[in-house]
Amino acid sequence: MDEIKIIEIIKKTLKFSNKNVVKGIDDDCAVIKIDENFYLVATTDMMVKKTHIPSILTPYEIGRRILTANISDIASMGAKPLAFLLSISLSKEEANELFIKELYSGLDEFSKLYNCPVVGGDTNKGDELILSGTALGITDNPIYRRGEVGDDICVTNDLGRVYCALHLYYKLKYKKISYKEFEKLCQKYPKIFEKLKRPVARVKEGLLMNKLINGCCDISDGLGKEITYFKNFEIHTDKIFKLIPEDVVEFCEAFDLNPIKVALNSGEEFELLFTTSKFNKVKNTLKNYSKVHKIGKIIEEGQFIDGEEFHGGGYIHKW
Amino acid sequence: MDEIKIIEIIKKTLKFSNKNVVKGIDDDCAVIKIDENFYLVATTDMMVKKTHIPSILTPYEIGRRILTANISDIASMGAKPLAFLLSISLSKEEANELFIKELYSGLDEFSKLYNCPVVGGDTNKGDELILSGTALGITDNPIYRRGEVGDDICVTNDLGRVYCALHLYYKLKYKKISYKEFEKLCQKYPKIFEKLKRPVARVKEGLLMNKLINGCCDISDGLGKEITYFKNFEIHTDKIFKLIPEDVVEFCEAFDLNPIKVALNSGEEFELLFTTSKFNKVKNTLKNYSKVHKIGKIIEEGQFIDGEEFHGGGYIHKW
Repeated sequence: MDEIKIIEIIKKTLKFSNKNVVKGIDDDCAVIKIDENFYLVATTDMMVKKTHIPSILTPYEIGRRILTANISDIASMGAKPLAFLLSISLSKEEANELFIKELYSGLDEFSKLYNCPVVGGDTNKGDELILSGTALGITDNPIYRRGEVGDDICVTNDLGRVYCALHLYYKLKYKKISYKEFEKLCQKYPKIFEKLKRPVARVKEGLLMNKLINGCCDISDGLGKEITYFKNFEIHTDKIFKLIPEDVVEFCEAFDLNPIKVALNSGEEFELLFTTSKFNKVKNTLKNYSKVHKIGKIIEEGQFIDGEEFHGGGYIHKW
Repeated sequence: MDEIKIIEIIKKTLKFSNKNVVKGIDDDCAVIKIDENFYLVATTDMMVKKTHIPSILTPYEIGRRILTANISDIASMGAKPLAFLLSISLSKEEANELFIKELYSGLDEFSKLYNCPVVGGDTNKGDELILSGTALGITDNPIYRRGEVGDDICVTNDLGRVYCALHLYYKLKYKKISYKEFEKLCQKYPKIFEKLKRPVARVKEGLLMNKLINGCCDISDGLGKEITYFKNFEIHTDKIFKLIPEDVVEFCEAFDLNPIKVALNSGEEFELLFTTSKFNKVKNTLKNYSKVHKIGKIIEEGQFIDGEEFHGGGYIHKW
């Protein structure tokens, strides 16, 4: 059983809807129409300690991360954050003042950054740390996962660092390297760990380019999975290569990794993947915030990489 | 460490807010002002298998229950349900088609009942079943946990059955009774199990009495805990006794329980506890839906039961 099959069963089973629902479970956020020019967008994102939270993250970083993961979905709709709610299940290990203070300090700091107050929550006792966030946002023009034929497909900033950071983290976890070696590598590749530990959702970018783009999603499960939401596309490895920062290229050489595969499979990057016919305008509008790179185009039919059929990538939960 | 202390730490740590937030984490729902006569209310409620989900509940009942627990908070604000999101963490045990279909069928059935479509979610892999729901609602007049001096304090329908059902469930779980005896008792006290297995949120009641009441909360952790949100009150055991249905009285006699304690400590009842100066109007307005009972009054100062100081009750998580 995998995540995709489970979501299919869920979609088939949930039959009830009503006229308020513009978009259900098929996009980064649900979209609820409040009136003609006013839409509420809502998303929920859960982090399970064993599956999602590398033990090298501090409680402070965990707090920022759960908020960022949710806000990134709001950003990808081109919407403005409105409010955040967090339910938490704590095991005995985390049910102490220090852990809670640090976690919620991280949350508080980033809620200010995103102008998205934490307005509610629920506290529970469980066997492992689980955080479940819900972010709400508002917009007059929700942006979906789509594109027009001929649109450029673009990505903000860069991809690959999170994959590299996790690569090292798993080497440490499965004792392929010592903690001392791990620490040395952290110092050698500081930006790689920065992106894992302190990701930022591209809220300003989403808002600024709202009227200039045709479609958008955030890169949380890896470009290789997210790109398939656009259905028909051609992308090019030489262009993807321009998304990969130099330290990632160096890292890939040192650890014998394919940098293109790294870029396609690097999840929780929280960069925006979008489609537009106004690339230069977008580039100019975002120039003080983020770089933008073209990686391909929306086409009539098919999914291609360098002219060959595209076979995907990215992360899918399996049981 | 207990839940109350944790919530205190969280409230102290979360400093950021903005002008949209009318109510933060101090009520059944957060309240966000959209415009003069339009408020969004939002709540999140998590169920952890070991802590919250008796194994006698079917997946279908679990699905209905997580929705009802969340919608009950919307009802207590006097608001109209708008949409629901569900994040879920599945262990290997639950990651199968039958379980998922049943769970989401229960959810779908009740989302129709409450006119509250399920619009989003997140699916994860974990060590135990955890469901985290978020319900959104709208209202022109959010009702808080409060009352005016002199207000009647009232409760809808009845209290006590859930406590009794769990009392038997724990006898079964800790092998004080056999499964056969348990089944016999289920047949002897059918309404007791009905209330545990198929609770309903009082949405219509909340909406109908919105303009007639001064304060409201739902009874999810037990009357003994919820009543303290009203700060200053006197309640009377003879009046509380009228809330207790006959089968609960019988059950208490058979199992040597104090029915008043049962009524004060019975959680997840999802009845509404409210304050009003218009008791007769409320009673008349709800007559086709729910009974209402007075149990006491809001006073100037202090918390009393039968003239004695009140020492609380209800459920609090402890680590």
